[in-house]
Amino acid sequence: MADHDIYILNGPNLNMLGVREPGIYGSDTLADIEAMCRDRASDLGLDVVFRQSNAEADLVSWIQEARENADGIILNAAAYTHTSVAIRDALSLTDLPVVEVHLSNTHKREGFRHHSYVSAVANGVIMGFGAQGYLLAIDAIARLIDQDAL
Amino acid sequence: MADHDIYILNGPNLNMLGVREPGIYGSDTLADIEAMCRDRASDLGLDVVFRQSNAEADLVSWIQEARENADGIILNAAAYTHTSVAIRDALSLTDLPVVEVHLSNTHKREGFRHHSYVSAVANGVIMGFGAQGYLLAIDAIARLIDQDAL
Amino acid sequence: MADHDIYILNGPNLNMLGVREPGIYGSDTLADIEAMCRDRASDLGLDVVFRQSNAEADLVSWIQEARENADGIILNAAAYTHTSVAIRDALSLTDLPVVEVHLSNTHKREGFRHHSYVSAVANGVIMGFGAQGYLLAIDAIARLIDQDAL
Amino acid sequence: MADHDIYILNGPNLNMLGVREPGIYGSDTLADIEAMCRDRASDLGLDVVFRQSNAEADLVSWIQEARENADGIILNAAAYTHTSVAIRDALSLTDLPVVEVHLSNTHKREGFRHHSYVSAVANGVIMGFGAQGYLLAIDAIARLIDQDAL
Amino acid sequence: MADHDIYILNGPNLNMLGVREPGIYGSDTLADIEAMCRDRASDLGLDVVFRQSNAEADLVSWIQEARENADGIILNAAAYTHTSVAIRDALSLTDLPVVEVHLSNTHKREGFRHHSYVSAVANGVIMGFGAQGYLLAIDAIARLIDQDAL
Amino acid sequence: MADHDIYILNGPNLNMLGVREPGIYGSDTLADIEAMCRDRASDLGLDVVFRQSNAEADLVSWIQEARENADGIILNAAAYTHTSVAIRDALSLTDLPVVEVHLSNTHKREGFRHHSYVSAVANGVIMGFGAQGYLLAIDAIARLIDQDAL
Amino acid sequence: MADHDIYILNGPNLNMLGVREPGIYGSDTLADIEAMCRDRASDLGLDVVFRQSNAEADLVSWIQEARENADGIILNAAAYTHTSVAIRDALSLTDLPVVEVHLSNTHKREGFRHHSYVSAVANGVIMGFGAQGYLLAIDAIARLIDQDAL
Amino acid sequence: MADHDIYILNGPNLNMLGVREPGIYGSDTLADIEAMCRDRASDLGLDVVFRQSNAEADLVSWIQEARENADGIILNAAAYTHTSVAIRDALSLTDLPVVEVHLSNTHKREGFRHHSYVSAVANGVIMGFGAQGYLLAIDAIARLIDQDAL
Amino acid sequence: MADHDIYILNGPNLNMLGVREPGIYGSDTLADIEAMCRDRASDLGLDVVFRQSNAEADLVSWIQEARENADGIILNAAAYTHTSVAIRDALSLTDLPVVEVHLSNTHKREGFRHHSYVSAVANGVIMGFGAQGYLLAIDAIARLIDQDAL
Amino acid sequence: MADHDIYILNGPNLNMLGVREPGIYGSDTLADIEAMCRDRASDLGLDVVFRQSNAEADLVSWIQEARENADGIILNAAAYTHTSVAIRDALSLTDLPVVEVHLSNTHKREGFRHHSYVSAVANGVIMGFGAQGYLLAIDAIARLIDQDAL
Amino acid sequence: MADHDIYILNGPNLNMLGVREPGIYGSDTLADIEAMCRDRASDLGLDVVFRQSNAEADLVSWIQEARENADGIILNAAAYTHTSVAIRDALSLTDLPVVEVHLSNTHKREGFRHHSYVSAVANGVIMGFGAQGYLLAIDAIARLIDQDAL
Amino acid sequence: MADHDIYILNGPNLNMLGVREPGIYGSDTLADIEAMCRDRASDLGLDVVFRQSNAEADLVSWIQEARENADGIILNAAAYTHTSVAIRDALSLTDLPVVEVHLSNTHKREGFRHHSYVSAVANGVIMGFGAQGYLLAIDAIARLIDQDAL
Repeated sequence: MADHDIYILNGPNLNMLGVREPGIYGSDTLADIEAMCRDRASDLGLDVVFRQSNAEADLVSWIQEARENADGIILNAAAYTHTSVAIRDALSLTDLPVVEVHLSNTHKREGFRHHSYVSAVANGVIMGFGAQGYLLAIDAIARLIDQDAL
Repeated sequence: MADHDIYILNGPNLNMLGVREPGIYGSDTLADIEAMCRDRASDLGLDVVFRQSNAEADLVSWIQEARENADGIILNAAAYTHTSVAIRDALSLTDLPVVEVHLSNTHKREGFRHHSYVSAVANGVIMGFGAQGYLLAIDAIARLIDQDAL
Repeated sequence: MADHDIYILNGPNLNMLGVREPGIYGSDTLADIEAMCRDRASDLGLDVVFRQSNAEADLVSWIQEARENADGIILNAAAYTHTSVAIRDALSLTDLPVVEVHLSNTHKREGFRHHSYVSAVANGVIMGFGAQGYLLAIDAIARLIDQDAL
Repeated sequence: MADHDIYILNGPNLNMLGVREPGIYGSDTLADIEAMCRDRASDLGLDVVFRQSNAEADLVSWIQEARENADGIILNAAAYTHTSVAIRDALSLTDLPVVEVHLSNTHKREGFRHHSYVSAVANGVIMGFGAQGYLLAIDAIARLIDQDAL
Repeated sequence: MADHDIYILNGPNLNMLGVREPGIYGSDTLADIEAMCRDRASDLGLDVVFRQSNAEADLVSWIQEARENADGIILNAAAYTHTSVAIRDALSLTDLPVVEVHLSNTHKREGFRHHSYVSAVANGVIMGFGAQGYLLAIDAIARLIDQDAL
Repeated sequence: MADHDIYILNGPNLNMLGVREPGIYGSDTLADIEAMCRDRASDLGLDVVFRQSNAEADLVSWIQEARENADGIILNAAAYTHTSVAIRDALSLTDLPVVEVHLSNTHKREGFRHHSYVSAVANGVIMGFGAQGYLLAIDAIARLIDQDAL
Repeated sequence: MADHDIYILNGPNLNMLGVREPGIYGSDTLADIEAMCRDRASDLGLDVVFRQSNAEADLVSWIQEARENADGIILNAAAYTHTSVAIRDALSLTDLPVVEVHLSNTHKREGFRHHSYVSAVANGVIMGFGAQGYLLAIDAIARLIDQDAL
Repeated sequence: MADHDIYILNGPNLNMLGVREPGIYGSDTLADIEAMCRDRASDLGLDVVFRQSNAEADLVSWIQEARENADGIILNAAAYTHTSVAIRDALSLTDLPVVEVHLSNTHKREGFRHHSYVSAVANGVIMGFGAQGYLLAIDAIARLIDQDAL
Repeated sequence: MADHDIYILNGPNLNMLGVREPGIYGSDTLADIEAMCRDRASDLGLDVVFRQSNAEADLVSWIQEARENADGIILNAAAYTHTSVAIRDALSLTDLPVVEVHLSNTHKREGFRHHSYVSAVANGVIMGFGAQGYLLAIDAIARLIDQDAL
Repeated sequence: MADHDIYILNGPNLNMLGVREPGIYGSDTLADIEAMCRDRASDLGLDVVFRQSNAEADLVSWIQEARENADGIILNAAAYTHTSVAIRDALSLTDLPVVEVHLSNTHKREGFRHHSYVSAVANGVIMGFGAQGYLLAIDAIARLIDQDAL
Repeated sequence: MADHDIYILNGPNLNMLGVREPGIYGSDTLADIEAMCRDRASDLGLDVVFRQSNAEADLVSWIQEARENADGIILNAAAYTHTSVAIRDALSLTDLPVVEVHLSNTHKREGFRHHSYVSAVANGVIMGFGAQGYLLAIDAIARLIDQDAL
Repeated sequence: MADHDIYILNGPNLNMLGVREPGIYGSDTLADIEAMCRDRASDLGLDVVFRQSNAEADLVSWIQEARENADGIILNAAAYTHTSVAIRDALSLTDLPVVEVHLSNTHKREGFRHHSYVSAVANGVIMGFGAQGYLLAIDAIARLIDQDAL
């Protein structure tokens, strides 16, 4: 089977991972997570595009780009999870499998973090497992891509 | 009567028009709509600046720019319609006539699309007529500009 | 192409147009608007039935009648926009294109005017352009009828 | 036992039954339902006054009239179920048994149809059984009238 | 001082007064109230038009008529108090003094009776004094008309 | 008929009447209103205790006192109308007729002024007639006391 | 036509029927109702399984069992009507016709009884007719089964 | 490293998996899922206790039991997710890692399924991946147990 | 005076008392509390039936049983306090005095614990005193039984 | 053990106890309750300061005073329970044990009485037992003081 | 420039400052704050009236008094911020500049502290800077008074 | 004492200051405010980085940058105050003192401006003093930095 491409997209402030509030987000930096993701993806025959931006528009545009170039999207929209209809619309416009991932369990935090604009347009959600959640998301999307490939 | 200038500004994901979900948004691309708009505007003696961006800040800045350069604004803020106070504030700071346009009838869609931050600072709203709505908006703004010109 | 018939139906208090509160509703009387509508419709090959009533039941019955006799409905339900499920149900029972029109931009007024029972069963909505909105609605419905006719 | 009289009152748009949306309301016309009702009522020694109106005021006045002339009321207020305090008040002013009936199961439809102003002033409610629900309502009201007669 | 004319308008089910639920509404019939009103108005040099209807549209049209013919309006909109935007709009279109009156104290009844669409467009409100409230309303409107006459 | 005593109790800031915001509250001072009340009450054979306080506790205690000494209470609780359960409880503990009065029509003001803790425990409400409302309230309570006396 | 089987399932506290609160629930015991049901069902060629439990899980399991063994379900879920998603899910998993029945008219009782998790997954609802409602439900389900059998 | 024990607990109606609504829940039976889980767990050195019940109390008691016997809990509480404070309390009383799993993405379903009493007391949540979600949950809990073991 | 019998019924997870979260619930086990209760009850001439279950249905059935066998009920419904209409209904069906008791002060905990379905059908409530609250409840119910016995 | 001092503070309208509404509040006067409290407190080695005021400020100041002079507070804030943040803040500023007591079961009364600003800053709550509740509160606070003294 | 007078008014429990909860309110006593305020005001040519009361009525009356005697008001209404319409009304009746100040940042505390009745009638708000906030408020009001003086 | 650095960050549309709506925002341009800020900061030994952007992402990134380079942040997030969780998260990730400033008093404006995502993560808030508010904010942050430096 030919290799597949996935986009792993990260939202605002995730470039600060590992630097502050490890109690909530863990001690791994985003570079650590990227490395872990590349290892796992490689084992599953997946090529990874891994990006982070503080800009909602970048996430929108990268999702549009993934529509052309990729077979699946893993998205940690961070704060935009709770406020961005634009990201939701971008996801709606692709047919790709989408996995929503969060480092923390947002249901243990402030009430405004309990609602996600992303969830209803994602295939599934994985939250609360720290960096490990990204690896679970890669396993999940590999499976979803395989199902699509059937 | 001297020609007038109008800005037709388009928000996130409208660059994807015609590519996906034609059932909701129609089969015209944004370039098709731009061409249709230029034709109609030309008939009415209006020069058109036609732009699209996925970035909220671009829309804010273009509205500020229109304040200096244009006689009216037609705005399809797309997803930002429902989430952007910044765009609303930018519109409030101009004295130009503003027409809000939407391709789809947002009242037939999810509840969070029923509220618009734009409507209360626009002169009028046109929604649900697909690309045709842009032409109606041009007719409407031409009239509003004429009234201002009296 | 054969001529088409449209019903333009007007709700409570619209018989008072031009008499009071021109700041909100403009200085045209309903007779003025009817005349403008007949002109524009005539240009587009549309025959117009133009009526007003203060009674919800009249609007319901006229919509039922339009179902038999007309090719499209333009409805300014005025106050009943916000309170009438009966009008909504009547509209749901026709297959005709429906354009909702309002003279004022209801989003600039009291909160209870922000919800419309009509919008979700109309093809599109035009509001805030005064009498001019009726002409835009005629243009819009002409187009919708043409699409149906294809 | 002497015969009893019942009023079967039908609200807006029920005159359109059988013509449109049979998936929701069934294929029987209101005349069909009236015939079925007269048969069943006759078997139970009940005389039937069967009426329909699109006007809230007609329903109010007929309920007031039933207060003088009838022994029970079966009411399908249709859209007015959800909006009419006037009908509720009229029902409150009679001592007659009242059965609320709906062709469709309103709980499967839009949220605004889940609330009934009628229910709290009716003896009982029957919904979701199409035309058959009217026959069940006749059985029910016959029993309620008998209890009153004791 | 020349005589003034007032309209005293009564909404749905008020034709049933004195017949049922005297505990809530008192034992006076509407004819009794009319007689009392005419006496009091006569003492104050006011001519009275006194009407009742179960139809929202009648109340709307009579308010429009009062705009031409009267110097003040006393309105007991009964159930339509809580549901009619059309009546509110009709009142907004007159410059006449308006007194809202209710026989019962609506704040002691169901929650949906605590909100009035009429109050915000009336000069004042009188409720809870039974038939006596009409006489107080006449005294009040006489005074308001005098102030207007200055 | 023997004379009756009534308490006319006034809440916070009513000592400022006539000094500020005559547009809302009128130009009469509280002393003016007291004088008008004494005149009217005298005509009706009523003795008046007329008091004002900025303290919720004073109003509570005076209502308790009225329970022993008076035949009726007219209460303008001003701001405490919207916040005081204590005043409501004090009123609940008397059997006296109670008339709630407000100078302004609170339904034309901020949303938090639309709810009254007093209304549900008063016999009736009079609002929006300025100082004149006190005289209407005296007429009303005289009648209520007479009914009690029967 | 071959006989059909129906399950009549009763929720918590219905074993206490006839013992307490006859004003709300009537004086029939559940055994009385069972006997009445068997008579009526027998007339209609229906075999009845009639059960009651205070346990949510029993109701879930019996509905699952009915899926294999029966042609229709009549369910009075009593208190679980308002709180059980598990029962709703069990009903969703069967293709059988389902009639929801309640002895009392829940809309006359506390607010939390106005919502039913069952209604949206039932064919129809019958409430407020006491024990008689079960017989109406049997008539209704017999008809629904016949329709399925066509 | 010594083997660890995990409890995989399944709530109401999950015994029906694979039989109905495969569009929502997939075609695997619960026995299929159990087999898949045992395979994966075995690879990771985990012993599995796998149970299902329609009874809330069973889930509560099994969670209490797991507290003594297991090193982690995977819970698909199904319908009780949205209604059971008792299950939440039972989870709060253990110190074990807890993974909440759902076959479907509950955010794509009815509004009442968007809230989970379980999430705030679980370490993490995995939803929307069908039977595959259980395997991801096993991977996740293995990691959480390892962290605890450090 | 003859001895009286009381039922002390305990809901889900109370079998775990003393084992976990002593900060919230105290260090006494349920057996300790039972012993304390028996001592106190014995002093007051009360025989105690003391039970715990994780099952809502057990609590419902025991309350029904108490109706026959006991003179009063002390109920700590724990988590079911906030979710069980069935328990509320069972309590409504007895005439016995009922005391609701909670170990913790639920108003210091999550918002969903602030509402109790039990309170409105209990005579009184005691919360926040740990195991001591049971003894206060026994004192209270002894008094209530004495009053009933008069 | 040395004696302890407790403050028993009573809010607005409690000076009226025994005079009105014995159905809700019982027939004991506040003086009766004070006498009962002194007896019970004396048995437990507690000195009592017993006060009542209609003024929120008095309750605030007395709580501040208790902070210096007492070992515990029993508070029946009556109507201020539902409206006073000032009393809540005063209680937060003491370290004393606090028992909230109410004569009636507030959950059986109007909705606005279901929320208490006091509860979340009290140790425990006792309501619904009439005057007897004060004695239970004394028992409770004696125990709480003893625990503090350890 | 002639000296100006300002009132610095402090609400309930602020007399306890420095004594308890320094983590929230800081360690300065109200006397310390008064001294700091007098120093700063003196530098700016302002005379200070500095008062504290636990009584809402005192604050109302002092604001009325300031209207006559002062050029500006600094108000820390403490708990009454969230509950007092009377204080809001008193402020509305003065034309003086008003600065609202809070020691703590109320947005970090309970939800009911997020709303202020004062803010909408104050010129500005300063919160979260402890005692220092009073000095900032003095600087601010000095400037506002200067602007008025122009 | 060594100099400190502060970032003064300004959100969308603040580049338009002084140009439009001086009634709300004052007549100073942002350059005027910057100059005033530099003067005041210089007096206090603070170096200022002063920036404005219409882009949410710029504000997020500058806050992250300030974390490395500055000792405190003054933020006027303008419209993003009400919609940006991303800015809130960025602020949460720094340990710097943060002062939220607004030119206008947002509590006098539309309801959606009453909530700030920033306030709960800022040390303090200053609003309603126009450009002067920036100077107060500099004074405030100088003090907060000094406290940190201790």
